[in-house]
Amino acid sequence: MSELSVNHLLGIKYLNEKDIKLIFETADHFKEVINRSIKKVPTLRDVTIANIFFENSTRTKLSFELAEKRLSADVVNFSASQSSVKKGETLIDTVNNILSMKVDMVVMRHPNPGAGIFLARHVNASIVNAGDGAHEHPTQALLDSYSIREKLGDVGGKNVVIVGDILHSRVALSNIFALKLQGAQVKVCGPRTLIPKHIESLGVTVETDLRKALEWCDVANMLRVQRERMDISYFPSTREYTQQFGLNKQLLNSLDKSIVVMHPGPINRGVEITSDVADSNQSIILEQVENGVAIRMAVLYLLASKIK
Amino acid sequence: MSELSVNHLLGIKYLNEKDIKLIFETADHFKEVINRSIKKVPTLRDVTIANIFFENSTRTKLSFELAEKRLSADVVNFSASQSSVKKGETLIDTVNNILSMKVDMVVMRHPNPGAGIFLARHVNASIVNAGDGAHEHPTQALLDSYSIREKLGDVGGKNVVIVGDILHSRVALSNIFALKLQGAQVKVCGPRTLIPKHIESLGVTVETDLRKALEWCDVANMLRVQRERMDISYFPSTREYTQQFGLNKQLLNSLDKSIVVMHPGPINRGVEITSDVADSNQSIILEQVENGVAIRMAVLYLLASKIK
Amino acid sequence: MSELSVNHLLGIKYLNEKDIKLIFETADHFKEVINRSIKKVPTLRDVTIANIFFENSTRTKLSFELAEKRLSADVVNFSASQSSVKKGETLIDTVNNILSMKVDMVVMRHPNPGAGIFLARHVNASIVNAGDGAHEHPTQALLDSYSIREKLGDVGGKNVVIVGDILHSRVALSNIFALKLQGAQVKVCGPRTLIPKHIESLGVTVETDLRKALEWCDVANMLRVQRERMDISYFPSTREYTQQFGLNKQLLNSLDKSIVVMHPGPINRGVEITSDVADSNQSIILEQVENGVAIRMAVLYLLASKIK
Repeated sequence: MSELSVNHLLGIKYLNEKDIKLIFETADHFKEVINRSIKKVPTLRDVTIANIFFENSTRTKLSFELAEKRLSADVVNFSASQSSVKKGETLIDTVNNILSMKVDMVVMRHPNPGAGIFLARHVNASIVNAGDGAHEHPTQALLDSYSIREKLGDVGGKNVVIVGDILHSRVALSNIFALKLQGAQVKVCGPRTLIPKHIESLGVTVETDLRKALEWCDVANMLRVQRERMDISYFPSTREYTQQFGLNKQLLNSLDKSIVVMHPGPINRGVEITSDVADSNQSIILEQVENGVAIRMAVLYLLASKIK
Repeated sequence: MSELSVNHLLGIKYLNEKDIKLIFETADHFKEVINRSIKKVPTLRDVTIANIFFENSTRTKLSFELAEKRLSADVVNFSASQSSVKKGETLIDTVNNILSMKVDMVVMRHPNPGAGIFLARHVNASIVNAGDGAHEHPTQALLDSYSIREKLGDVGGKNVVIVGDILHSRVALSNIFALKLQGAQVKVCGPRTLIPKHIESLGVTVETDLRKALEWCDVANMLRVQRERMDISYFPSTREYTQQFGLNKQLLNSLDKSIVVMHPGPINRGVEITSDVADSNQSIILEQVENGVAIRMAVLYLLASKIK
Repeated sequence: MSELSVNHLLGIKYLNEKDIKLIFETADHFKEVINRSIKKVPTLRDVTIANIFFENSTRTKLSFELAEKRLSADVVNFSASQSSVKKGETLIDTVNNILSMKVDMVVMRHPNPGAGIFLARHVNASIVNAGDGAHEHPTQALLDSYSIREKLGDVGGKNVVIVGDILHSRVALSNIFALKLQGAQVKVCGPRTLIPKHIESLGVTVETDLRKALEWCDVANMLRVQRERMDISYFPSTREYTQQFGLNKQLLNSLDKSIVVMHPGPINRGVEITSDVADSNQSIILEQVENGVAIRMAVLYLLASKIK
């Protein structure tokens, strides 16, 4: 049987093309199972998974939790706000304590880039990075590519534009790694101040004119605008942003082809994307959410099979 | 087999008399099962239920969660304070995202009246309203009527007074609907400023003298005083309220009959009700809590049988 | 079969030596089960346990939750911050409401000393005290003694020093009771202002010189410094504390023997203990955490067998 080349999912950066293919095929299987209304499989019955979230999260946490429960894993949740992290405990102490209780896998979201990598080096458990600062969010990128593949077939050769605040986005970075690894062409589009200086070194091109980017692409992944960054000097006003980088129905209809529209959620309706676009049949936003559970089941299953 | 006339429990307003009867008979069954110390039945083994609480809640959330677990449903909890609702996401996006993860039923508490109705129109899942602003709290009214029926027999023909802030109370409104539907006579009693103008149109009478109301009734449902409203001009001071509308042992003993005392909790001991009344054998407050689990099991079971 | 002399675990003060022995032997059994990678036993399949935490907690809550899940109990969690406790409800109302829902056992942490004792007198369920103010934290003391026994054999006759803020520490008090009951010699060591006046009446001696205490002991239990107390007048500054009562590698190595180092966590690395000591092979800190789950499984199992 095939297995992953890694023992942790710390970032797409550490995967190879075969890994992604294996994750997708495993997700296909789990998605089929779910669609046959079989809600639970006994696959991870002996595995205890701790979800450790040092940042708020709705859909990612819920999606992991559902994936874990459908695999029949035992799940314990740990949120930073209820935690002794506040009391000044170090990350490694917190996690070591949890692991001493015989937890097999840790799904962690943390505000510091590299927190998962640090953890994987120091503790004896399989780590899944559920977002580490502005670094990576690998399961999001996997579900994004999986959703493109489901809609358009093989991701290789497709033209994908990622629109928004590329500089601060772990979703953008993980998507770039995943898309390039599968042979897609990738453009990033957004305000100059929000695009990292040497991004071309990752094999992507920069386009600051949204219309041109859309005319080029098969898929547009519209990143969420982080309103909490809106008051920072290098960030345009919401109104300016929407005018230059927001996707509305008129713009979408003016293209001479039907592109696929994606969004990692939660949507700021009327800011980066209008409601009629988000709810149109070109949008695969809800499919992304649905696929998230299958992808996470696949990742957890494949990593668990390496620890047993 | 009988089934409910509705696909959602949005309010008592949408039920008919047969629905209530069916819910009560189903609750009888589950209560008997629980009393035989059979803590879990496999009835909802394939059903995933999301508890989405946009307002704090103790007993209602816990009661639903226990009901769901005793039916062997898979349960995911989602609280607004940990959620992207804060990030400005709309209600429908939040819920659609949750449903995309293949959730079958949603139990929701929300501060906006009608939030459940809105949801039921727009999403493809069975919705249970666990309280929507000052509108309805149907499972509370069902468990209240069920507790009266358990203590006094058929609710039809009984005299029930609801005492307190009728204007802002979803418990009062749902109780009025449920009691009238079953043929009870209903009085409301409270400060004039806290009784809605045209409440008589619902078939209830108004009584501002608590003693007179108690002399008339078989059952007194003492609503909780919302202390957070106490500083609003039209609300009396706590001391005034207690003097005029608080139920104490002396008043209770001065009646020439033994009435049943109810309270939806949590109790402000010494405000709307004194401790000796709350803990007396005329009080069925703890029975209400106990019955809440059986009623919620019944509602979830009956709604689930319609989606399968 | 042996059973506990008590129906609740309110404090070590209420146990006898046989109880402790029985708990340890039962924990031995569960630890062996866990180590054989059998993650779940069906022992408490019909038991519903409510974890009621009126104070934040990481490891204790997680440890109890894991213990309960491994015993296959049904678990409901209740945290004060999401609760109607804020609405002014009394402790007894909150717990009675939870019990009315047919909960069999309550694990409670509460800021008031004696909260568990009060509860046990008034409600009909088995109570486990998970920390009540500065009073007791019995499962912590049990896992501490159990960890000493695992490392050094019988606790009887061993010399144990507890270092830190003895005055405000429920861990210290419960440990003193447990150690004395098993026949250990106990010293307490810390700033004069943080040692209770008549502590000798508990059969312990006071030593304000850390080096002397360490030279005497087999085991040093280094209590956590509560930083939130640091600004109080009778408390030394962090720097002073660390100089006089902090344990570092140099001091540890200067002893002419190898003592065992314990800490209830979470650690303030560099304050009461340095990282090289915490992570050394003389430290059994992670073993304490691991044993915590087995000890809690044993306590829950033994108490549950008395209610059935």
